[in-house]
Amino acid sequence: MSEKKLNEKKPGHMTPDEFRAAGHAAVDWIASYMEKVEEYPVLSQVAPGDIRASLPEKPPETGESFEAVLKDLDDLIMPGITHWQSPGFFAYFSANASAPAILGDLLSSGLGVQGMLWATSPACTELETHVLDWLVGMMGLPESFLSTSTGGGVLQDTASSASLCALLAAREKATDYKINVSGAVQRERPLVAYTSSQAHSSIEKAIKIAGLGSENLRLIDVDENYAMRSDALEAAIENDLAAGRLPFFVCASVGTTSSSALDPVAAIGEICAKHGIWLHVDAAYAGSATVCPELRFIQEGLTHADSYMFNPHKWLLTNFDCNAFYVRDRAVLINTLSILPEYLKNQATESGSVFDYRDWHIPLGRRFKALKLWCVIRHYGVEGLRTYIRNHVQWAQDFAGWVDASEDFELTAPTPLSLVCFRHKGGDDFNQKLMDDLNEAGDIYLTHTKLGGRFTLRLAIGTSTTERRHVERAWELIQEKASRL
Amino acid sequence: MSEKKLNEKKPGHMTPDEFRAAGHAAVDWIASYMEKVEEYPVLSQVAPGDIRASLPEKPPETGESFEAVLKDLDDLIMPGITHWQSPGFFAYFSANASAPAILGDLLSSGLGVQGMLWATSPACTELETHVLDWLVGMMGLPESFLSTSTGGGVLQDTASSASLCALLAAREKATDYKINVSGAVQRERPLVAYTSSQAHSSIEKAIKIAGLGSENLRLIDVDENYAMRSDALEAAIENDLAAGRLPFFVCASVGTTSSSALDPVAAIGEICAKHGIWLHVDAAYAGSATVCPELRFIQEGLTHADSYMFNPHKWLLTNFDCNAFYVRDRAVLINTLSILPEYLKNQATESGSVFDYRDWHIPLGRRFKALKLWCVIRHYGVEGLRTYIRNHVQWAQDFAGWVDASEDFELTAPTPLSLVCFRHKGGDDFNQKLMDDLNEAGDIYLTHTKLGGRFTLRLAIGTSTTERRHVERAWELIQEKASRL
Repeated sequence: MSEKKLNEKKPGHMTPDEFRAAGHAAVDWIASYMEKVEEYPVLSQVAPGDIRASLPEKPPETGESFEAVLKDLDDLIMPGITHWQSPGFFAYFSANASAPAILGDLLSSGLGVQGMLWATSPACTELETHVLDWLVGMMGLPESFLSTSTGGGVLQDTASSASLCALLAAREKATDYKINVSGAVQRERPLVAYTSSQAHSSIEKAIKIAGLGSENLRLIDVDENYAMRSDALEAAIENDLAAGRLPFFVCASVGTTSSSALDPVAAIGEICAKHGIWLHVDAAYAGSATVCPELRFIQEGLTHADSYMFNPHKWLLTNFDCNAFYVRDRAVLINTLSILPEYLKNQATESGSVFDYRDWHIPLGRRFKALKLWCVIRHYGVEGLRTYIRNHVQWAQDFAGWVDASEDFELTAPTPLSLVCFRHKGGDDFNQKLMDDLNEAGDIYLTHTKLGGRFTLRLAIGTSTTERRHVERAWELIQEKASRL
Repeated sequence: MSEKKLNEKKPGHMTPDEFRAAGHAAVDWIASYMEKVEEYPVLSQVAPGDIRASLPEKPPETGESFEAVLKDLDDLIMPGITHWQSPGFFAYFSANASAPAILGDLLSSGLGVQGMLWATSPACTELETHVLDWLVGMMGLPESFLSTSTGGGVLQDTASSASLCALLAAREKATDYKINVSGAVQRERPLVAYTSSQAHSSIEKAIKIAGLGSENLRLIDVDENYAMRSDALEAAIENDLAAGRLPFFVCASVGTTSSSALDPVAAIGEICAKHGIWLHVDAAYAGSATVCPELRFIQEGLTHADSYMFNPHKWLLTNFDCNAFYVRDRAVLINTLSILPEYLKNQATESGSVFDYRDWHIPLGRRFKALKLWCVIRHYGVEGLRTYIRNHVQWAQDFAGWVDASEDFELTAPTPLSLVCFRHKGGDDFNQKLMDDLNEAGDIYLTHTKLGGRFTLRLAIGTSTTERRHVERAWELIQEKASRL
């Protein structure tokens, strides 16, 4: 190959000026989307296979213009979008984006650093440590979670991954790091974990992944508010101890997925302390609320926790993915997940004076995620974040009041924060049909759960575009649709 | 709270017009960074704690302007950046971003969808399936990996996570899905996995996470080219079988991290087929090369693989994170990782006619990652991607030739693709000092490994900004620096 050929302009290379133009077009496309997001049906109305059928069978041999890509985004992709950022999105828990988060994420993509080690971009590690320490103060979290103490925080992708890491650290601590070496095979005492019957499915997924088996996860009974019964937990632990098993992990939920129930962390924490069991607290959705001092009652007893996590991507205006995971004793986590091959050795790591976050989670490589969280906190300020949370909580309380005052609907669980669980009194099939019709109409998007065996509608407020008028409108639509069924 | 107060403009809310302006500023910031990335020292020169010391101790109570954030990015964060997108970045393997990838990622952030289920954004799932099917054709992968066959592909974050999923699927298939239920505890036959002594550390991490124990991972000897010896693999398997253990998983590396060695996949595959062992192929770095038909020799025998993965974020111009993971039989993967709580049930899932990708990996939630890969493939076209790969491979061959012709330096491993392993003949300490001095000077960034116990320098070509002149310059600098030591 001649040198001339090697040095010619690479096909498709976008110059900085071309990137400026295309980037402005992409930003304008998003701004325009923000302006009209309310006009789309929230839940995509396509049938399985529709989107694929519209796409060309083969990739292009030669490059195409960015304009062509944007046009196809409008024509071919948008019909298949369920609009998580619509003000009428009340399904699941939200994945709330915001303008500064989008910009922070863009800057991260532009820098393109990979922060697996401190050395591979010191700012990627140190800004993350710094912002996670900020959050400890902003949310009144235990000081043991500070990096300046024995603990520390790290950004993970999702709650599922964070809970898996917590469970692994607990597994290794309970067995003196022996399962890492010898496996769970041929151990005499089965390890047993505990969570409530209302806990997130990721806990069951984690115990399977960890090789401990779903049979060894006890789903503890809940009280009338769907919160874990601490007496039932204690009885289960004692039963397992008597049978020669090894209780090693309890996951308490602060804000369950179905109904935002609040497990009694303080009581659970005392039981864990008494038996030397790792306490993990899953506050994936609800944790963000504690930027408001008046809502910190939800984390009473959190000083007992060995690990804790919440998702800024759910309710702290930071776009997906962004999970904040804390441990009280980082040495246990690091000892559990650390691997140091020759090709990753470097002076900073060997000095012991830095965090190498790749030892704090499953993946090795890592994106500069702290940048978007930093942009969000700086753009809104702590007070701005509080205002969002307070509005959402207030509107949910209002909605719950309307339901409660209605003759046809009823609440099915308490509304401690911004999720309202309710149903029409017409029975399961009626509610399923009501939900399907509402979702098909496209103005709002609701999902369901079952509480006490009964089909329950969920209205989760948390999208950053939602205003009070959208919550009012949702209630009108629900009543209207129900009256016509 | 009065209605008036609730409806007032939220503090910090950025209007679409404000987002347009700030977004253009962010795009311009990145374009400007692209223009001057070559001027920065590649490896950040800060000391541990420097970046944190420059940041305010507490977060702001009230919001700040985006201009202030951009200014701090320049003043406080940039000194702590190691420039992965610099043309002088030859360390590890690259994490190669490109303009269209950045734009695709931006659009994904702007849409803010979370594609855990088909229903939560059908286009997020279907575009992903479509693009991964495209790649099968583009790279000559086995047709069993097509979604229209029994298999299929999924985007994961990193190779570590993908290999963990492969190992878990293998574990469950080998035990009739019983470890998921009962755990590995009290099983009579320990499960044993195999990979080479040169394999990536993520395989050891995965077997620990899966509860099987690092003692049950056999690191098979390599030949003079650092590729796994298939005869040694077969002997190890037979030894374990004779001892009553259960061989269940082999990971072959196509392009090891240390030296890009190519394990003999065809020979390994035949051994796996004979013994009914799951074959996983880790082509994290090298896989992208196979967009060039003349480089497909590296995946000879891949039809034997039960699972396969490579990182478009390493060498296919798609910014981190983006791992493409394929399985031959998706039912095994889904049976291994599926969890279906009530709150995730929906008509599309129950119809069985859609993929719900949350059952294909560890996390539940997922970002619309296919968008950036789609933007890259469309922008460059397949031919444009080939040109990048061919240039990088050619320049590495050239560099290897210069080393080979030199009196002072020597190659320490073959150069099948774009990684050159070499050393000065002056010994380990000399090479360590040479590397440290080069990295401190900041024009280029190299990392090291050990091969045959000897300290080896690695020059990995893969950054999208690198041109032939940068490779030439690297060789000049290395010679210059060595001559002065």
